[in-house]
Amino acid sequence: MPDWDLLIQNARLATMRDGGYSVSEGNALAVSDGEIAWIGRASEIKEGSAEETIEAHGQWLTPSLIDCHTHIVFGGDRAAEYEQRLQGVSYADIAKAGGGIQSTVASTRAAPLDDLVGTAALRVQDLINEGVTTIEIKSGYGLDCDTEIAMLRAASRVAEKLGVSVRKTYLGAHTVPAETDADVYVDFIVNDGLPAANESGLVDAVDGYCEHIAFTDNQIARVFEKAQQLGLPVKLHADQLSDCGGAALAASFAALSADHLEYTNEAGVEAMAEARTVAVLLPGAFVTLNETQRPPMDAFRSNGVPVAVATDCNPGTSPMSSILMAMQLASREFSMTPEECLAGATCHAAKALGFDDRGTLQVGQRADLALWNIEHPRDLSYWMGGSPLAASFCGGTRLR
Amino acid sequence: MPDWDLLIQNARLATMRDGGYSVSEGNALAVSDGEIAWIGRASEIKEGSAEETIEAHGQWLTPSLIDCHTHIVFGGDRAAEYEQRLQGVSYADIAKAGGGIQSTVASTRAAPLDDLVGTAALRVQDLINEGVTTIEIKSGYGLDCDTEIAMLRAASRVAEKLGVSVRKTYLGAHTVPAETDADVYVDFIVNDGLPAANESGLVDAVDGYCEHIAFTDNQIARVFEKAQQLGLPVKLHADQLSDCGGAALAASFAALSADHLEYTNEAGVEAMAEARTVAVLLPGAFVTLNETQRPPMDAFRSNGVPVAVATDCNPGTSPMSSILMAMQLASREFSMTPEECLAGATCHAAKALGFDDRGTLQVGQRADLALWNIEHPRDLSYWMGGSPLAASFCGGTRLR
Repeated sequence: MPDWDLLIQNARLATMRDGGYSVSEGNALAVSDGEIAWIGRASEIKEGSAEETIEAHGQWLTPSLIDCHTHIVFGGDRAAEYEQRLQGVSYADIAKAGGGIQSTVASTRAAPLDDLVGTAALRVQDLINEGVTTIEIKSGYGLDCDTEIAMLRAASRVAEKLGVSVRKTYLGAHTVPAETDADVYVDFIVNDGLPAANESGLVDAVDGYCEHIAFTDNQIARVFEKAQQLGLPVKLHADQLSDCGGAALAASFAALSADHLEYTNEAGVEAMAEARTVAVLLPGAFVTLNETQRPPMDAFRSNGVPVAVATDCNPGTSPMSSILMAMQLASREFSMTPEECLAGATCHAAKALGFDDRGTLQVGQRADLALWNIEHPRDLSYWMGGSPLAASFCGGTRLR
Repeated sequence: MPDWDLLIQNARLATMRDGGYSVSEGNALAVSDGEIAWIGRASEIKEGSAEETIEAHGQWLTPSLIDCHTHIVFGGDRAAEYEQRLQGVSYADIAKAGGGIQSTVASTRAAPLDDLVGTAALRVQDLINEGVTTIEIKSGYGLDCDTEIAMLRAASRVAEKLGVSVRKTYLGAHTVPAETDADVYVDFIVNDGLPAANESGLVDAVDGYCEHIAFTDNQIARVFEKAQQLGLPVKLHADQLSDCGGAALAASFAALSADHLEYTNEAGVEAMAEARTVAVLLPGAFVTLNETQRPPMDAFRSNGVPVAVATDCNPGTSPMSSILMAMQLASREFSMTPEECLAGATCHAAKALGFDDRGTLQVGQRADLALWNIEHPRDLSYWMGGSPLAASFCGGTRLR
């Protein structure tokens, strides 16, 4: 009987163990029961040790990619609004005409569950085609009890349908619904929305948007306190458009991650370092909103804050279903090195989701693997266009 | 006997006739002998009018895309150099260590013709997967007689291999070879390099790089005068890093296009308008070089200069084989509307290559067609990731 289910041999292994390439001495990796069972030299292996053997011919093997911040389940799109803005129509006029996030809320509320699943699955497939096997999906376009739960259920269905691992985040505190005001809505989240979603068993984490156009720090704190009562980890859209102390607020709740962070100040970075909160950078939104203020990469580096990169896939501010493009833009727009970008979509992205079972190639980790037809892992951030993915595995099962 | 070879019906047609979407009243298009034979209403068609019928189910049909500025044939890559720069190594130190364009010249000179063809074909396939059927390919990494011709021959071979239409541009005046000086090298181009390449029958146009790090306006003028003697149209890399009067120089030779143009002044734009020279914008280089000076879109618009968008696919400053990403970045970085971006990769890109037989959907034009699984053509510039191409045709022949 073979020892292993799968053996990949004559590959080059970037293990991403210490947040860097950490290239292995070994050139072979074996999988048993969905986990990495062995890493070593192909020359040490006896014939017939594995049920299936893949000859990699020098291709690179890395942990498969993780997109740790998406709003990939939504109804409608905002392409017409995108076009109007470029034609010179102001945000204010677009919002007055029913555009902006409220139009996505209306479309999402109106969409049958099957449509939410079907349209999201197409976008998730784009990510799978680029080596992604774990995706975070947020609610936040329903706002009412039923639609928030429908969005999280759609996320679950996408996971089943495509065989990808999905982490579901409740983001009731995304925007204030048109039909109410912020404080009343936060009461609703705390007393009804979040508990109901949690009872449905669909919530892995709780997120919020702290910004002058969304919720204040006090309102977010109320949501986070409720999350803590329910035993749920938190994360925060912080300091995207202004320095509103979001990073420090997130850190004070030991958030898994604080996301965006263009305007985060030094004290916020230090608080994140202290709390081991991951910085999630989102270059798709940065370029789509024509932002000029860059997140403080140097401060993250000098304070040892792990930095992740994600698509922020959403119909308004980051219409993007390409994790490779997110990495390519992060290196160009945020001066992240290709090594930092790859760590940002593997080991650090895993941390941002609270996972310690994936994101690196190590014995005992989930066999979440991506095999690449590249000369070096830096190529993933260097070359824009196409997908060099040769194969991917999610928990040991072939995904692409 | 059927009247037509191919009929596409129940499509929505963005004809791009007048530089805009110019959506057709018709919902069907017929092809005969590689050309568009008829556009009209599907309801007017008798059964059996075409050998093959494609039911488009409301998909959009546009002219297939044209990438009108690439250096897609080259040896080696510059990923390591890209990584070094992000790690903080200076351009000067990279160049001193043999990096920069001279390293691509060395790799290209050393590459067997089959390797040049094989590696370029992979990148061209990325473009084909996004609806491209016409590609401009420049020489310029050989500089010596034989390698320049080898690059142009590789471009021809790629065209044959993949069934795509290729326009070949001689770019001897790309950079000064390490082994000589600029004036001596321009003598060589004018007396030997360009005539030899032209005699081999591989030159459709002549290009040059006017910039303080490349050639002066006088040196470029000598090359262009020779091109005119040989009856070859010209185009120019102009005003990318500084205002060196490149746009006006190009216009004074009635250039097909002037490309880059970040630093072009109002007089240069007016000269281009007068000469009907197309502006080719290259956002891949803009973001890769972290440029901040944007090309003068408003002046192009107000002067009626047609604007094209291209990948500038090259290993150093624009490692990009995605025309859709070029469009997506052009709309974000240069505030081009999605309609301008699509015109920039169809009708205006055709003009930039001197073609009047493609780039729009009109009876008598080549049947260069792209069928898209999208809600509206603006989606091509809006959504980043994946390729919504359903099918493409090059001169009536199915390409994807």
